[in-house]
Amino acid sequence: MLRIEFVTDLGARVSVEVDGAEKLLEVQRQYGRLGWTSGEVPQGGYLFPLENEQDFDWSLIGARKFTNSDGEEMVMHRGHAYRRRELEAVDSRKLKLPAAIKYSRGAKNTDPEHVREKADGEFEYVTLAIFRGGKRQDRFALPAGRAQAPQGGPRPAAPAGPRLQAAQAPAGRPAPAPVVARPAPAAVAVADEDTPF
Amino acid sequence: MLRIEFVTDLGARVSVEVDGAEKLLEVQRQYGRLGWTSGEVPQGGYLFPLENEQDFDWSLIGARKFTNSDGEEMVMHRGHAYRRRELEAVDSRKLKLPAAIKYSRGAKNTDPEHVREKADGEFEYVTLAIFRGGKRQDRFALPAGRAQAPQGGPRPAAPAGPRLQAAQAPAGRPAPAPVVARPAPAAVAVADEDTPF
Amino acid sequence: MLRIEFVTDLGARVSVEVDGAEKLLEVQRQYGRLGWTSGEVPQGGYLFPLENEQDFDWSLIGARKFTNSDGEEMVMHRGHAYRRRELEAVDSRKLKLPAAIKYSRGAKNTDPEHVREKADGEFEYVTLAIFRGGKRQDRFALPAGRAQAPQGGPRPAAPAGPRLQAAQAPAGRPAPAPVVARPAPAAVAVADEDTPF
Amino acid sequence: MLRIEFVTDLGARVSVEVDGAEKLLEVQRQYGRLGWTSGEVPQGGYLFPLENEQDFDWSLIGARKFTNSDGEEMVMHRGHAYRRRELEAVDSRKLKLPAAIKYSRGAKNTDPEHVREKADGEFEYVTLAIFRGGKRQDRFALPAGRAQAPQGGPRPAAPAGPRLQAAQAPAGRPAPAPVVARPAPAAVAVADEDTPF
Amino acid sequence: MLRIEFVTDLGARVSVEVDGAEKLLEVQRQYGRLGWTSGEVPQGGYLFPLENEQDFDWSLIGARKFTNSDGEEMVMHRGHAYRRRELEAVDSRKLKLPAAIKYSRGAKNTDPEHVREKADGEFEYVTLAIFRGGKRQDRFALPAGRAQAPQGGPRPAAPAGPRLQAAQAPAGRPAPAPVVARPAPAAVAVADEDTPF
Repeated sequence: MLRIEFVTDLGARVSVEVDGAEKLLEVQRQYGRLGWTSGEVPQGGYLFPLENEQDFDWSLIGARKFTNSDGEEMVMHRGHAYRRRELEAVDSRKLKLPAAIKYSRGAKNTDPEHVREKADGEFEYVTLAIFRGGKRQDRFALPAGRAQAPQGGPRPAAPAGPRLQAAQAPAGRPAPAPVVARPAPAAVAVADEDTPF
Repeated sequence: MLRIEFVTDLGARVSVEVDGAEKLLEVQRQYGRLGWTSGEVPQGGYLFPLENEQDFDWSLIGARKFTNSDGEEMVMHRGHAYRRRELEAVDSRKLKLPAAIKYSRGAKNTDPEHVREKADGEFEYVTLAIFRGGKRQDRFALPAGRAQAPQGGPRPAAPAGPRLQAAQAPAGRPAPAPVVARPAPAAVAVADEDTPF
Repeated sequence: MLRIEFVTDLGARVSVEVDGAEKLLEVQRQYGRLGWTSGEVPQGGYLFPLENEQDFDWSLIGARKFTNSDGEEMVMHRGHAYRRRELEAVDSRKLKLPAAIKYSRGAKNTDPEHVREKADGEFEYVTLAIFRGGKRQDRFALPAGRAQAPQGGPRPAAPAGPRLQAAQAPAGRPAPAPVVARPAPAAVAVADEDTPF
Repeated sequence: MLRIEFVTDLGARVSVEVDGAEKLLEVQRQYGRLGWTSGEVPQGGYLFPLENEQDFDWSLIGARKFTNSDGEEMVMHRGHAYRRRELEAVDSRKLKLPAAIKYSRGAKNTDPEHVREKADGEFEYVTLAIFRGGKRQDRFALPAGRAQAPQGGPRPAAPAGPRLQAAQAPAGRPAPAPVVARPAPAAVAVADEDTPF
Repeated sequence: MLRIEFVTDLGARVSVEVDGAEKLLEVQRQYGRLGWTSGEVPQGGYLFPLENEQDFDWSLIGARKFTNSDGEEMVMHRGHAYRRRELEAVDSRKLKLPAAIKYSRGAKNTDPEHVREKADGEFEYVTLAIFRGGKRQDRFALPAGRAQAPQGGPRPAAPAGPRLQAAQAPAGRPAPAPVVARPAPAAVAVADEDTPF
């Protein structure tokens, strides 16, 4: 018998029994769709293989995809909206980095020091996840038959705990690394990054 | 089987079994009426839809409404008294914010750094909750038949753990954002923000 | 089924099953008499109604009353000795405070920053509890038939975990607020604040 | 039913069921002999009665006695070696302290700020335990028939988690308080403070 | 009945029942092969006997060995790659240290202060484990019949939670202590320290 500890969408600390290790991801998906999260975002953000980005099941980490009013692909996680960015490969003498896709947001006043990363100038940002390198793992993918944006299905409860902070940030956007613009896919839920409800 | 972790009104750490996820809010209401809380107030305060403000069930987060001796609407949470404020919409070139209702208090000496927010000048405040945007969620509302202020019913145990600090703050009040005065509703319990008992 | 988490007198982390919420205070009393505590002292100290001070059951928070060698009323909590002080009511233009009774001690070098409160000059102190305002709650009182100082009964195990620090403080005493001397009651156990055993 | 939380000798977080409060110390002894600890060392170190020092059962706090290659009495606790010191009584106008026996070590670079205590000059030290005043409590003593140093018996697993730091400290030794030299008793295990295995 | 708390490879907090203390290491191996860890790395790194280094079972701490593209022996732990280094014995007047093998990496921007150790100049590094002195303990060894690098067996799930940070560090390498180069053994899995997947 396993037990997983969550923070609910209302911020409460709740643990749930799991019948066995093979059922764990299923339980994380089930409660993640409600905006429940387990553990902390790792320093620097979650790391997943690049090949998992296309059909990644964001409910695994209590997040959900949406498209904001500007047509940009975003991810909502504990009330914060993260923007999708494509990072080109770097191949200099000092630094070699494969191409990657990163979900990050500008830092806010209330962010603790240890999640802020420095970019050019005085800009600071916070990373939720990076998809880079590695081999695809099917266990991270959306279950077959479940669309990324279940528009007609039972809508998960909105994350109520954390605050809507994107609305308070200035309109300027972070550019912490080489970014390649990409048109937003059509099949995602239209939502406003400023209104998680 | 779920288990939720509370801090009781006496400050003790107590967990309670819950029969299933669908019973969770009911259990939070039951113990929240005693002043028990689960988890931390999110940085910047809880965020709820504006349409939930009128009949919000404060027991969900271990708080309760009252009207202070000046007739103002207040919320008591872990021994701190928060004042209701109406924030007008902001629509400038730099910042767009829908109208909101905010429950906040002036910061005290003993407040840790990470809950303090800066206002104009040297004033600092602490936010319990913001109601802004979004769509109403019925699960946050007071159960039918339960008045906001159950004056005749079994009075919940007073929060004893935290201290009465409002009494030690100077009489001047924070005005961290555009505030619109509003007459206090009649149907709330009359209480003094200085005496939680 | 509930479960309460304690820190034992030896500093160990132990949780105990409780049959129901109505049995919780009884279990806190039972283990509190051994010097076990649950949760942290709230910032600024526990707050209780003034009318509860006379027969307050200190075992509820893992503490016990004693009279030191100078005949002063003291409370021992996790190896620290706190002195009883009566605070007169304050009624100035800036500050209105009802009369109160406070249990506090001078701060020591090893006290973390967030429990220290400033007094006049450079003096810093730490508050365990304040009794002020409110309405008496019988649930906080000593059970009938149990004297405050059970001198002949089974003596609770002495708190061994924390250290005896009062002995290392200079003889000068804190006077962080208006203090009214009061003779010590006769019916408390005679003990030295410097020797918790 | 009780449950006690340990950190194992390998640093893992493991909780163990205990049949009742009267079995708790027995369980602490059983796992403490493996180097498992529960909770944190109190700030300033554990405090025990002076009369318990002679036959104190160090397994109660996950520690073990040994004699180092210089014949000094030492205690190993989570990979750190603490030296036994006898402190004379102090009886000045400012400070009154009964005689005591203290187990402490010099502070290392990796020690967090809150465990370091200042001594004369720039020297800093860390205290594991102080034996001073109070009345002997038999529950802290070695069980009858168990020698302090079970040389032939089943040797407890060495604490592997924390590091061997004594070896990296300079040879100079702390003298944070009046120290009285005392010959080491014969009946302790001969071990090197630099090699916990 | 015991219960061990893990952080999974996805960063979730999950506890697992263990039938008895004698089964504990087996359970740690089982989940450690998935990249799950329990508790924190001790300050200064895990300490093990030198004689355990050759066939140490890294799954005990949720880590795994690999050889990077330069043929160096490395260990991957929570997404960080640590390099194997041989430290010569030191025998000066001030410091006596037996020979050791150390697994460490250069510090990154996102490492918290308390895990950074100073080396010569401005260089800072982080230690995962030191093998030094002591007596071999068979319980730390790879189970018989299990090769260090199970290339054909069921490949454990890659640690996804933490980020791939080695890729962002400059190519220069730390040399915090006397290092003796050693050819990498042949029988380890070939992997790139920059791609944990």
